[in-house]
Amino acid sequence: MHKLLTTVLAALLLAVSPGSASAATHPVAAPADEDGYNLWLRYQPLAPPAQAKLKGQARSIVLTAAATPTTRAAVAELQRGVAGMGGGPAPAQATAIADGALVLGTTASLPALDAALKTELSRLGSEGYLLRATRLQGRPVTLIAANTDIGLLYGAFAWLRATAAGTAPVAASSPKLQLRLLNHWDNLDRHVERGYAGASIWDWWALPEITDSRYTDYARANASLGINGTVLNNVNSKPEVLTPAYIAKAAAVADVLRPYGIKVFLSARFSTPLELKETDTADPLSPAVQAWWKKKADEIYRTIPDFGGFLVKANSEGQPGPQDYHRSHADGANMLAAALAPHHGIVMWRAFVYAPEAGKETDRARQAYEEFKPLDGKFAANVMVQVKNGAIDFQPREPFHPLFGAMPNTPLMMEFQITKEYLGFSTDIAYLGTMFEEVLESDTMQGAGKGPTVAQIIEGAHTLGGQPAATGMAGVANIGVDRNWTGHHFDQANWYAFGRLAWNPQASARAIAIEWAAQTFGNDARVTTPVVDMLMLSREAVVDYMTPLGLHHMMGTAHHHGPAPWVNDLERPDWNPVYYHRAARDGIGFDRTASGTNALEQYAPALARLYADPRTTPEKYLLWFHHLPWTYAMPSGRTLWAEIIHHYDRGVAAARDLQTRWDALRGVVDARRHAEVAQRLRRQVQNAQLWRNACIAYFQSVSGLPLPDGVAPPPQPLEYYKGIHFPYAPGRG
Amino acid sequence: MHKLLTTVLAALLLAVSPGSASAATHPVAAPADEDGYNLWLRYQPLAPPAQAKLKGQARSIVLTAAATPTTRAAVAELQRGVAGMGGGPAPAQATAIADGALVLGTTASLPALDAALKTELSRLGSEGYLLRATRLQGRPVTLIAANTDIGLLYGAFAWLRATAAGTAPVAASSPKLQLRLLNHWDNLDRHVERGYAGASIWDWWALPEITDSRYTDYARANASLGINGTVLNNVNSKPEVLTPAYIAKAAAVADVLRPYGIKVFLSARFSTPLELKETDTADPLSPAVQAWWKKKADEIYRTIPDFGGFLVKANSEGQPGPQDYHRSHADGANMLAAALAPHHGIVMWRAFVYAPEAGKETDRARQAYEEFKPLDGKFAANVMVQVKNGAIDFQPREPFHPLFGAMPNTPLMMEFQITKEYLGFSTDIAYLGTMFEEVLESDTMQGAGKGPTVAQIIEGAHTLGGQPAATGMAGVANIGVDRNWTGHHFDQANWYAFGRLAWNPQASARAIAIEWAAQTFGNDARVTTPVVDMLMLSREAVVDYMTPLGLHHMMGTAHHHGPAPWVNDLERPDWNPVYYHRAARDGIGFDRTASGTNALEQYAPALARLYADPRTTPEKYLLWFHHLPWTYAMPSGRTLWAEIIHHYDRGVAAARDLQTRWDALRGVVDARRHAEVAQRLRRQVQNAQLWRNACIAYFQSVSGLPLPDGVAPPPQPLEYYKGIHFPYAPGRG
Repeated sequence: MHKLLTTVLAALLLAVSPGSASAATHPVAAPADEDGYNLWLRYQPLAPPAQAKLKGQARSIVLTAAATPTTRAAVAELQRGVAGMGGGPAPAQATAIADGALVLGTTASLPALDAALKTELSRLGSEGYLLRATRLQGRPVTLIAANTDIGLLYGAFAWLRATAAGTAPVAASSPKLQLRLLNHWDNLDRHVERGYAGASIWDWWALPEITDSRYTDYARANASLGINGTVLNNVNSKPEVLTPAYIAKAAAVADVLRPYGIKVFLSARFSTPLELKETDTADPLSPAVQAWWKKKADEIYRTIPDFGGFLVKANSEGQPGPQDYHRSHADGANMLAAALAPHHGIVMWRAFVYAPEAGKETDRARQAYEEFKPLDGKFAANVMVQVKNGAIDFQPREPFHPLFGAMPNTPLMMEFQITKEYLGFSTDIAYLGTMFEEVLESDTMQGAGKGPTVAQIIEGAHTLGGQPAATGMAGVANIGVDRNWTGHHFDQANWYAFGRLAWNPQASARAIAIEWAAQTFGNDARVTTPVVDMLMLSREAVVDYMTPLGLHHMMGTAHHHGPAPWVNDLERPDWNPVYYHRAARDGIGFDRTASGTNALEQYAPALARLYADPRTTPEKYLLWFHHLPWTYAMPSGRTLWAEIIHHYDRGVAAARDLQTRWDALRGVVDARRHAEVAQRLRRQVQNAQLWRNACIAYFQSVSGLPLPDGVAPPPQPLEYYKGIHFPYAPGRG
Repeated sequence: MHKLLTTVLAALLLAVSPGSASAATHPVAAPADEDGYNLWLRYQPLAPPAQAKLKGQARSIVLTAAATPTTRAAVAELQRGVAGMGGGPAPAQATAIADGALVLGTTASLPALDAALKTELSRLGSEGYLLRATRLQGRPVTLIAANTDIGLLYGAFAWLRATAAGTAPVAASSPKLQLRLLNHWDNLDRHVERGYAGASIWDWWALPEITDSRYTDYARANASLGINGTVLNNVNSKPEVLTPAYIAKAAAVADVLRPYGIKVFLSARFSTPLELKETDTADPLSPAVQAWWKKKADEIYRTIPDFGGFLVKANSEGQPGPQDYHRSHADGANMLAAALAPHHGIVMWRAFVYAPEAGKETDRARQAYEEFKPLDGKFAANVMVQVKNGAIDFQPREPFHPLFGAMPNTPLMMEFQITKEYLGFSTDIAYLGTMFEEVLESDTMQGAGKGPTVAQIIEGAHTLGGQPAATGMAGVANIGVDRNWTGHHFDQANWYAFGRLAWNPQASARAIAIEWAAQTFGNDARVTTPVVDMLMLSREAVVDYMTPLGLHHMMGTAHHHGPAPWVNDLERPDWNPVYYHRAARDGIGFDRTASGTNALEQYAPALARLYADPRTTPEKYLLWFHHLPWTYAMPSGRTLWAEIIHHYDRGVAAARDLQTRWDALRGVVDARRHAEVAQRLRRQVQNAQLWRNACIAYFQSVSGLPLPDGVAPPPQPLEYYKGIHFPYAPGRG
């Protein structure tokens, strides 16, 4: 501890006096300490050649479009970025276009723009941008052009991103999805459900008079990725959020976010009017209820003219909903949609439902499909159905949700979880870019030949008979008041990857990792190469040491941390790990083929056929779909029993590998962030070992089989692992 | 909002790039933005003449004593401070004493020290220090001398404080109290009971592997004031905190704090062994229970060799305690004390108790005295009884607690509340230095003539027949994860004032305000004079607009925010505001004289005589002790009814005055802190108005009297104020 303390002390000394003092007292060459607050928008000085180039591209900044809060934010960001990365003063804002100017403008504000660029620009829509080294009025300039103010802001961020990452700016870009949203599961008391980065950044008590300057930095970070909406409160919502006092609070946040193109949404509790005692039912077909919601929507829009709409979790896990009145999800969603429609608001209705009756024996994986598929085509035009990536619940790995591709007449919105409820909270590194990518590139096999992929489904081309459909992606935020926003510095990459994939669901997780690493730790291959390698191996490591080969939902009760495969005494069958792994003397795995629950039938026939046979089922999903004997022969030549153990051991080795790779970066990464990540990696290795030992001990108690040769036995008996509890684990629901 | 936004944006631009960039883009003369994280240890550049002087005093730093974690921290702090305030490089650490050296040493390490200084030093004890411009080896030096490492660290901070504040360093100082402790009411899930600055800084989940660098800055801040202990967890404690996993977590914190002279203590739940199922009773006279606690103490000290001891809330507000087994508080405290004694640990046993039986009609103000006075002299030597400043519960104003001076055979420790549970949370400015001072300088009249004051009582001179007694002061912390630690920048002053008064309970609140303001906003009279004026008037403002003239406990149920004088339906009589103000058609106030509950008899006879008559009762305590007719003639010539209204109006005017004074500092204080305080002042004025209007409306409904001429009627009817609720108010217990 004392050694650590010394490190921390030295780090602090460097951190607090960023001026000449630290340089003098600590004549080390190591990078100056950073606390992570600036995320990927650090704008640290580039290497001299890149600085020279940058200065040549941004001698001045010329805004030809009107000065608005949004264009002013773009100019300010460019000034900040160029000053920081260039290591000099910020370029002045000028009105005349001169050599080396950085010019922002629209077709209207740049009448001299050449015809080809105008045409190109016209195809980029209301949020796209174009970046180009070109000539204006005969002068060589760097052009950021767009059709709108927000396009200019996005373009500015894109240019800064390329500059920081040392890559060529993309020539042009526009988002493939319309709605790119964060979902905050943040309660009004600032507890964040499944939050592992401290309390909510939304200080409802202080609002509306007191707005934290952090809100602006939140907006900047999100705008830099193209995120254009945020649901401020938990899907497990409370009626008070729709009272005038809270609408005023939400409006104050909306005012801060608006210049950055971010709309505010709220999670609405279906029974709100009833619970506020303003109606005597919440039945969606009641005229009084319909009138209440219309009036409420009008009230909200008077205060927040660009309010986005409602996110609703209904008839799921005890939340109220239309089924309480024997109405359908469509009845409920459409009633709210009717209230919002005059204001162009939308309803995002979650498909995460499972039977509320305890004891009803069914396969939870089937239920969302069973409830929603029959409603396809029955939702109002301003309703989107928001579907989790998999049919269970944000596991380290799940096959894609069978609803994707199964509701061609309903716009489906993807719901990813950025916060790592089941993947080691904010102590374990697990880059989710690869997980999101794996889901998005999954082939639904719904088409005649190959495709469409899940990404193509949510992009809407295959929905509504090819008519333009609403499109979107939501990510359950991993943001809290921790200084670095996400608890773990590496968890910033998951926020980043979500945003980039929401802009382009077909983007590459590796490419995103590379640009994140370069912006976050500096464009230096000595750092970015190992960091990218760490990111790319990290999620598979977590799958290996927690739930390999298609196993799922074996985490500790309620808090979802640590191994608990033995739990079998919870009220509902489908809350118990034993329900999911079905380990017994005869084998392990959940039979979802025709001989079991036949959840497989919810996928396209071609895919269902493929997965019906364990030999043609991808190994990573094997025990998701099949119950197999422990002695089942794996392609590796190992038995299933040995293969499972092999994966656990591989997971622990990978966790140690992460640690080794990071240790090698001591002195290359700044001391503070290095120490903070190193502390967490120590915890991750412990967590990996605990999972490995507990699961092997437990499964051995079930299989009755000896450990394969060379496998280290768990150092403690099973009862020891069963006795480990995590009181006061964060993020409880 | 947009104007505010612009301010915030500008502020951020300045804040994020502290180098040349901001200077270039914002060529304003305003001070650079600060976020408050550095508290009073900002070490900003002094004015040129002061800088020159500083540099002359600290050309080098010479540590003659051994390098230990504590002396290294002292040297590091001096280097940081001199570099920051001097605006240049940090002075090098040298071994040879040269002209202008800043020398740290002890009598042993400075054999050449002259005899007079040696003698002076010998009187300063184990924590005192001496600061002197003197000669060593014939060289003019600045000497920081002490008898111990921690004395040197305290001396270093004292010298830096004087330098920053532009005052002459105190020649010598040593603490008047032995224990100077923060009490964190922080739960293991990071909720802070009565916390208004975000979640707990103690991240129990992350500990012990992950130690936030903030812990070190916490230690620095506290050491700078001489705080030498901290109770990490809430007095409403949980059994888990004494399990091995949590002891390891506390040990990790202790390791970080140790170099700064800060010991870790824990709040112990009396029923811990029973609740952990390791005994079958918690009876303090049970040998099994006694053995459990002895073993537990041994276990703790193996991990934390300098563990401070236990703080205990027993048989109070539902907490378990010895009375559950028909044992006395002394039985309970002494049992724990016996377990800790071999390790030199102590028990701090809280006197905040009130009858747990609902419906029992008594005066809550009497109860602590009634329970504890008979136990005087019955506590073990390593027990201290910790007494709140007043007999009710941390009200904006209370007369001093009658136990002070009433237990001459028991060391009493003062418990102040730094967090503003009843004084407007962290949105209203209320400098508590004046409140603490008012309590400490109160004359108990227990002596033959005048005195002793409460300060003298807790300094121990009048305890145990003048034998050396344990002494101490505890403050319920106002610290959370908010960037500026305390939510409101001005609340930093309350942490500061507590620490300074714990070092010297007879210090002046104004002098403390002056030195805090100079360190926090810069040694510039244009800022410090108005800031000190604001501090000095602020607490009286809160008393005026909340509970003037001795009124108390009229705050909203449970969360204690906002006016609720009408509440009369809570289970226990003494939870209801009506119990305390007793407003009726005949008058208002709580008769605690002989004609009432006679709580007055608990004070010394001379004082009780004085307060028995409303004419000789200080006006500020009038309605605390007397029930008087609305028409009672006040010394001002007003009726009591008019006087109450006058105070409410004066309180609102004072809140507006705070706002006006602060507005005048725009451009003089940095923009970020200015805006953040300005937002909160807006809220404070609203809160003052709400209190004023609600209380006048309510009291008028009771008195039936017309408003005096010229008084503005409350703009809304009483029912309106009764309908205001504060759902999700922070800090609930």
